[in-house]
This record gives sequence, structure tokens and C-alpha cells, in this order.
Amino acid sequence: LHPADIALLLESLPIAERLLVWNLVPAERDGAVLLEVAEGVRKTLIADMDRKEILSAARHLDSDEIADLVPALPKDIVADLLQSLDREDRAQVQSLLSFPEGTVGALMDFDMLTVREDNRLELVLRYLRRRRQLPSHASHCMVVDRDGILQGLLPIEELLLRDPETKVGEVMVKDPIFFYTTDQDQEALRRFERYDLVSAPVVNIHHQLVGRLTVDAVMEEVREAAQKDLLAQVGLREEEDLFAPLVKSARNRWAWLAINLMTAFLASRVIGLFDGTIEKLVALASLMPIVASVGGNVGNQTIALVIRGLALEQIQPANRRRLLFKELGISLVNGLLWGSVMGLFTYLLYGHLALSLVMMGAMVLNLLLAACAGVLIPLGMKKAGQDPVIGSSVVLTAITDSMGFFIFLGLATLFLR
Amino acid sequence: LHPADIALLLESLPIAERLLVWNLVPAERDGAVLLEVAEGVRKTLIADMDRKEILSAARHLDSDEIADLVPALPKDIVADLLQSLDREDRAQVQSLLSFPEGTVGALMDFDMLTVREDNRLELVLRYLRRRRQLPSHASHCMVVDRDGILQGLLPIEELLLRDPETKVGEVMVKDPIFFYTTDQDQEALRRFERYDLVSAPVVNIHHQLVGRLTVDAVMEEVREAAQKDLLAQVGLREEEDLFAPLVKSARNRWAWLAINLMTAFLASRVIGLFDGTIEKLVALASLMPIVASVGGNVGNQTIALVIRGLALEQIQPANRRRLLFKELGISLVNGLLWGSVMGLFTYLLYGHLALSLVMMGAMVLNLLLAACAGVLIPLGMKKAGQDPVIGSSVVLTAITDSMGFFIFLGLATLFLR
Repeated sequence: LHPADIALLLESLPIAERLLVWNLVPAERDGAVLLEVAEGVRKTLIADMDRKEILSAARHLDSDEIADLVPALPKDIVADLLQSLDREDRAQVQSLLSFPEGTVGALMDFDMLTVREDNRLELVLRYLRRRRQLPSHASHCMVVDRDGILQGLLPIEELLLRDPETKVGEVMVKDPIFFYTTDQDQEALRRFERYDLVSAPVVNIHHQLVGRLTVDAVMEEVREAAQKDLLAQVGLREEEDLFAPLVKSARNRWAWLAINLMTAFLASRVIGLFDGTIEKLVALASLMPIVASVGGNVGNQTIALVIRGLALEQIQPANRRRLLFKELGISLVNGLLWGSVMGLFTYLLYGHLALSLVMMGAMVLNLLLAACAGVLIPLGMKKAGQDPVIGSSVVLTAITDSMGFFIFLGLATLFLR
Repeated sequence: LHPADIALLLESLPIAERLLVWNLVPAERDGAVLLEVAEGVRKTLIADMDRKEILSAARHLDSDEIADLVPALPKDIVADLLQSLDREDRAQVQSLLSFPEGTVGALMDFDMLTVREDNRLELVLRYLRRRRQLPSHASHCMVVDRDGILQGLLPIEELLLRDPETKVGEVMVKDPIFFYTTDQDQEALRRFERYDLVSAPVVNIHHQLVGRLTVDAVMEEVREAAQKDLLAQVGLREEEDLFAPLVKSARNRWAWLAINLMTAFLASRVIGLFDGTIEKLVALASLMPIVASVGGNVGNQTIALVIRGLALEQIQPANRRRLLFKELGISLVNGLLWGSVMGLFTYLLYGHLALSLVMMGAMVLNLLLAACAGVLIPLGMKKAGQDPVIGSSVVLTAITDSMGFFIFLGLATLFLR
């Protein structure tokens, strides 16, 4: 079994059975499995291991892998673990941990082949043969000068195809795509995808080669980001383990519940303002949720389009205004069309012409509001440095609900007396 | 500029400016740019090209790239295009088009290096040198027998590290991960990620090598799938271009709007059943949206967790029942807790003890219902062969809204007289 398969098995098991299986995993594979499991599950496994087991699991890992595990380990064990490494590995782990999460520096590894510009290919070949094994995803050697400054990339295929007497400098790619340690991982991901990269050099601000970024690290990041988004949209942090204890899971959902209760309470108070109107015409109570609900839905469609446009960098300052007008236009068309349909239904149900006109007017106005909010909320969050995926929809629904009720009941108060 | 950069520029421009820029792109790069742009935008560009331009753009593309373009081309031009290809390319394009979208067959390319088990490495090296260039992402040569049946993989690094007199069969990987043309792309994606692959062989049912799958094709698929999901959740098809004509965009949103109106109308009719109760106590009209809204939110949290669990294959028939009970337990805890909070608020606002007890009871019951629906709807859709991401949330909200109103107003009718 591949460590990833063992990880999947552990993730699908309830805690008791999970720990039984975990104890059957041979000690030398513990580290590889820990790397593969989801964060929530990783914590339950580590809680079951003693200091000696953790240190021995780490012995089979590279420094970038150890750095990935550190956040899940108890603090006192981290100190011991760093002590147990040799000087170079310790320095590498510490350097990785010093980069903030979400940067290229935190994602890179150190498994590189470096050569000099004036080496002949024949020398490079001898160097590789001495290593006996190439690093995974080694599509090229990095070319650096005496000061460690990145000069170019030597594709492995050149070693196969060229005369061994050729110098590295003659066949290297002189203008390679590279990353700074401080680049955002989302940006790296976009460039890996855009330029079909398999691995790329990572440099510091002095342009010195410090590590490399590989497609598998980036791809894992894409997948995790997509899942985080799906969960973040409903206010869940990623760590929730499918089989975490009940009270812990319940607590994980409180923040979102509390926010939702507050916004719903607000909407409810808006309705409360119109008690007198509703008392006179109780049909308003059944019709008002329709206006609110359609506004929320239309606004969320706009949000989804804007978030995608931002992610693909299709939305720029220059085309924002045009986008807003377009969404307003769509809302006007759809509001008039579907507002008429709902107006007709209202007339058929209640035989009250003024009420059906109020229904139609409220739908048009709430859809226009929804389009505005759907464009401006994610753009505003992005501008404020927030992730627009998280919370855009909550804010929008709070607005379209409260204002939907307000518009509909307000129009009714004005025109239905 | 890289074709991907030109594509991004075109996507961010309104139609008129987009076509201006498009006409500035040199003809020999047209094909590469068309491959990179989003589907909606691709159609607007192709509509602007005449037959000759399209045929000449295709001349610079590989057969797998041509197959990617075909769905966007006018039918009569496809026939001409196929005629213009040589026999081998035409057969390749036709074979790619014969595989349904969403399968590995439709994603593969033909840019492979094939060798025989009894070749010496020295011969393989000479063969590669004659080619002068390796295919992109060529991490290994495919080893096949006389009948084209896949025998193993020869990692390129073995060519560098081993004695040239070694036979391929001695150093090849005998049990490689491979795909069938009929495998689902989602499954391929999971395995590329799980086993950190860069490229993998694709075989037919007779185990004959027919193509290869590369990490860039798979990664593009991941990203597109993630974006499709984000849009599909709000009932949008992927093709909507940010700057499509207004009426076309408006129409794209109708299906979702119509469904939403129907479910909202249904909920409204449920409220209509209780006109008499609301007339007697108009406070019910302001409180009822709270019950419905909290139910919808809690249910959507459960749906997000279940969808993630399904995507990661953590949810199996064996643990489904346990998952349902756990979610019910969380809803009970949160319902009692937050139901009490809302009951208290209701009492403070209206000073009506029975009303606040009805509020609390309705919250508990609707949260339990939401947990049930949140687990069962995505599992049911998955079982029925549907994508649980699309529509789960609509069905859930329809249930939690209508039933939320029904439970709250029903309890009020029973206990508040």
C-alpha cells in the first residue's frame, strides 16, 4: 500500500478503529503517512504517539517534509526534533518555518541539482551518476554562479541529446521562470498552470538560488484551496475531521450560526417595523419571503462570476464599471420578466391588482440591489485584502433579505391603503 | 508574450476591443492562443475568423490540440480541417473525439517515446538524439511489446545514470500506474495527485498503449472543475463570458431563477396555510424567516462537509449511518443552545412565554431536519449518478424553508390559542 492509500483508509475510520489501524503501520512509514493525511486527522494520530515514535518517524523524512509536520507537533517535541537533525537539515527546516503560510518559501523543497555555467555536460553527467538517483520531478539542473546567483536552467534532455563536450552555458535556458520566496502561492499556482511547469527555481531578494518548487506541491495546494473555499463559503474551517468529537464539531459551526442568527434577527426586526401593514393584509406575510429569496439567489450568481473573474485576473480596474452596468442590465431584464410572472401569479391568487404591482416593483428593485451588492461586495473585500470567497455570500444575503423585506413592505405601506 | 498571457488579455477586454487585439495576433500563434482562452471567449474569436484563417491556425497544432478546438468550430469547417490533415493525425483526432468528455481518452495526447524491452539503453539514446527534442513532460519512455501491449516504463534518468549496455527490461519499472481510456478524469486527477505523477501511459481494454496523460492536462482539468463547481452551485454554466451580450447572459440565469421562484412560491403557499394564525399574532410573520434561514445555513454546512468527504472518498457505505447520527447530534446540541438564545430574545421582545417556547422548539426541529437533509441529499444524488455539487443546496433550501415555516407556524397554531 502507498502511504496515500493508508492515509485515505485512516481518514474514513472513526477514531477508535483509526488508532487500531495506525498502530499496525510499520514505524518507518509513519512519517510518510502523517504527511498524507488531512490536518484534522493528523492531530488525532500524533496525539496517540509518544516522543520516541515521533522522533523516529521524522528520521525518514526530508527537511521540507519535517517542516510540513511541525505545526501539528507538541512544542517541546519540536525542540527535541530540531536538535536531532544535522546542521544543514536544521537550518533548512528553520528557514522553511520562517516563511509565512501561503508563500512560495513555505512550499519549496531543497532537492536540487546545481551546476556551473562553464561546466561541460560530460562533468554534469558524471556528477549525476555519482548521485545514483535524481530528485523527483527533476526536469532540469539549476545553473548558478560562484555567489549562488541563478543564471539559468539546464533541461535534463539536453544532457541526453547534446555532445558531452558542450558547455552548460551554451545550451541552458537563460531566461527561466522563477519565483521569489515571498511570492504568493496562488500566484505560483497560476504561473505553473499558465506555463505548464513541472518544477521551477526559487530565489531570495538577492536572486540567489535557495530552493525549488515542484508541480506536486503546487497541485496539492490547488486542491486544498478549492476545498477550503467550498467549506469557507459556509463558515467552516478546513480542519474539521469527519469523525471529530461531537461537541468539538458543534463548536466549529458556532461562529457562522451566530452571524446567521444576527442577520436573520435584523431582517426580522425590519419586518417588525411593518406589523401594522401586515395586520391589515396578511397575504403580505406569505409573499415577502419570495422577494428576499430571489434577491439572494441572483446576487449569489453575480458573486460567483465576479470571484471567478478575479481568480482568473479577468477583472481589472479598467473594466469594473462596465461589469457593474452589465449586471444591472441583466437584473433589470430579469426583474421585469420574472417580476411580471410573479405579479400575474399574485393577481391570480389574491385578485388584488395593486398588490401584484407592488410585488413586481419590489422584485425589480431587489434584483437591482442584488446586482450592485453582488459586484461591489467581492471587489470591496478583495480591495480590503480579504478573501472574497469567505463571507461575500453572508453579507450579500443579509442585505438582500433585510432590504427585500423593507422594499416590499415599504411599497405595500405606501401604495396599499 | 506567452500565448496564455495573450489569452488573459483577450478575456479581460469587452468584445469590440477584444477583436481589435485579436487581429493583431500573428497568424502562426492564433491556434496556441485559441487553446488557452476560456470557452465562451473562444467562440467570440472564432466567429471573427474566416475558413482560411481557421485552417491555417490549426496547421501549427498537434492532433490532441486540434481535438480540443473542434467543439468550438462550425461543422462545415471541421470536415475541411480533417481533410487537410495527414492520415495519422486525422485518425488521432477522430479517436480523441470519439471518447466522451470527462474520460481519460478525451484528455490524452500522443506525444510519446516508445521502446522495446530488449533494446539496449545505448540504442534508446541514439533514437532520442535522432528526434532532437523530447516531448514536454517526458519523464519516461513507454516500453511496449511487438503487439503494442504496455510492459513497463523506462524513467529518463535511467538513461543518464546506467551503463549504456544495460537492457531496457532490466531497469524499467515493471508495474507502472496506467489509465484506461474509459477512466473518469476525476479519478485520474486523484491518482496524479495521490502518487505525484508527471505523466502516465493510457491503454485500451486490450492493454495496448494508445496515448499518454500529462500533469498539465490534469491540472487544467482540476482548475476548471473547481471553477465549474463554484458556478454550478448557483446554477450557472461555465461558458458565460464576462462580456457576453446582455440578453444572452440574462437567459443563462433563467433556469436557476425559475427553480428559485418555484421553491419560494411553494414556501409562500405553506405560509398561506396559516393566514388565520398570523392574523391573530402578527409577531409570527417577523419571527418565521429566522427559523427558515438558520435551517438553510446549518444544512448547507453539512452539505459542504459531505461533498468534501465524497470527493476525498472518505465517506463509504460503512460509515454513512455514523455520519448521519453525528450530524443529528450536532444539530441537537446547537438547536438546544441557539434555540434557547432565540427563545430568550423572543421573550424579551414580546414578553410571550408560549411564543418563545414555540420559537425554540421550531429551531430544534428544523435544525434536525436540516442535518438529515444535508447528509441524505448529496448521498442520494451521488447514488443516482448526479453531481452532488449541482443542486444539493437548492433542494436543501427548498426543504428547510418550506418545512421551517410549516414547523414554526404549525407549532404556533397548536400551542398559541
